[in-house]
Amino acid sequence: MSVLKEEHWRELVDFARNLASAAGDAILPTFRTVSAVDNKITDGFDPVTEADRSGERAMRELIEKTFPAHGIQGEEFGSKQSRSEFSWILDPIDGTRSFICGMPVWTTLIALTWQGKPILGVVSQPFVREMFVGGTYGAWSENMLGRRPLSVKPAPHISQAILTTVAPELYRSPKQRNVLKAMRETTRMTRFGGDAYFFVMLAAGCVDIAMDAGLEAYDIAALVPIIEAAGGIVTTWDGGTAAAGGDIIAAASPALHAASLEIINRQEA
Amino acid sequence: MSVLKEEHWRELVDFARNLASAAGDAILPTFRTVSAVDNKITDGFDPVTEADRSGERAMRELIEKTFPAHGIQGEEFGSKQSRSEFSWILDPIDGTRSFICGMPVWTTLIALTWQGKPILGVVSQPFVREMFVGGTYGAWSENMLGRRPLSVKPAPHISQAILTTVAPELYRSPKQRNVLKAMRETTRMTRFGGDAYFFVMLAAGCVDIAMDAGLEAYDIAALVPIIEAAGGIVTTWDGGTAAAGGDIIAAASPALHAASLEIINRQEA
Repeated sequence: MSVLKEEHWRELVDFARNLASAAGDAILPTFRTVSAVDNKITDGFDPVTEADRSGERAMRELIEKTFPAHGIQGEEFGSKQSRSEFSWILDPIDGTRSFICGMPVWTTLIALTWQGKPILGVVSQPFVREMFVGGTYGAWSENMLGRRPLSVKPAPHISQAILTTVAPELYRSPKQRNVLKAMRETTRMTRFGGDAYFFVMLAAGCVDIAMDAGLEAYDIAALVPIIEAAGGIVTTWDGGTAAAGGDIIAAASPALHAASLEIINRQEA
Repeated sequence: MSVLKEEHWRELVDFARNLASAAGDAILPTFRTVSAVDNKITDGFDPVTEADRSGERAMRELIEKTFPAHGIQGEEFGSKQSRSEFSWILDPIDGTRSFICGMPVWTTLIALTWQGKPILGVVSQPFVREMFVGGTYGAWSENMLGRRPLSVKPAPHISQAILTTVAPELYRSPKQRNVLKAMRETTRMTRFGGDAYFFVMLAAGCVDIAMDAGLEAYDIAALVPIIEAAGGIVTTWDGGTAAAGGDIIAAASPALHAASLEIINRQEA
């Protein structure tokens, strides 16, 4: 665990919440005004909106002003190296496809790492006015219903589990496709379309297994401290550290995690 | 078009908005507190929550009190026949699977029919505090960004279209599965996981084609007047009236609708 004192951690949480608000203010005016056809198309469909950039700019400016020594790694503007033990990992709009479709399930992701390990994560959906916070000293949600602790509520067996993942298209290699197929057949129900929101819903006790393939560090670093503080487990498909990205599996209990890894490891490449 | 005067229509809109609020008040305390495992399992996965029933009860009580002569057709408590030309069609929680997963994309659907034809639809997401209204005299959204008119923004060609549908599992027959496959291959991107929300996002100009299979009247009746008032087209897969349910296709332009029907009709049963 981190040696950060609780008081210091809570100050950093407040700062991260301010970052999320600043990103939301920058992004919201564009929400539901962007036409999909206006967006840049790269390999497949990778829309990069101006909103994404202005959200990250707003967060970087606040960090540079308040913690000029801290490192920053952002989806849009790359990395700012630093000698500080603290570094921020930013994804202004996680779920750009949901954003383009007007669905209120994209999120702003903010992670703070200390000596390379995420100690604090914030997931914010400004249109819903909902935030999820978690790390060393707890995990909770803040929304219209108030502030509530986050805690996993695992299904007793994988056959009863709710599985989530953003989209079948993310599973590109034969092994990835086999894993998705086997996991869908083993679990009770699969839901698509959620990006990071599904992972915090696992922390909130509503989802049993959340899975994705080919994630970047900025897609997952903020989710790790929230999931872990809520009692969940999140690793790569081979059981390694999740925070750097890759193929990711989160589970609401050790049993569900072990059962998932067993299914994953059984699939041929 | 209806012979209802605009003033009368707007009074009915206000009443329907009150129905949506009453349903939201009844449903919200249960949101994110229900464990999936607690839910009734029928064929496949058909969770029916107490929240669903209390939402419909709240709406029925208001209708009985204010318009005792009106007919009512609800997902949970069936039909109340009447000699009135007006009848309400209610779905307290459209998207129960999203509800169970904690995702804020389930909605309350309210349609008012006059002589059997929907003249007014309301789609409400009380956790997001967002409502969509449409019918004879206009269509708009109400949310934290204010009140905005709804208007389609179609992609110029089906190859550039964003396609949405709730889940691949809904496509059960060989023909239905072939239709989904062909539509996914023809369009630019497919998004899953939205239920009614995707159809109002089509009305809002964010989605080009919204499709679903095997819908009931209460799943679609509220959406028809909103989509049509926003400039979209919604029919069954054979081009018939959508409001009674069935396999449904909505498109943001006549060209996208025609191109979709052509693809659908080409598929073998």
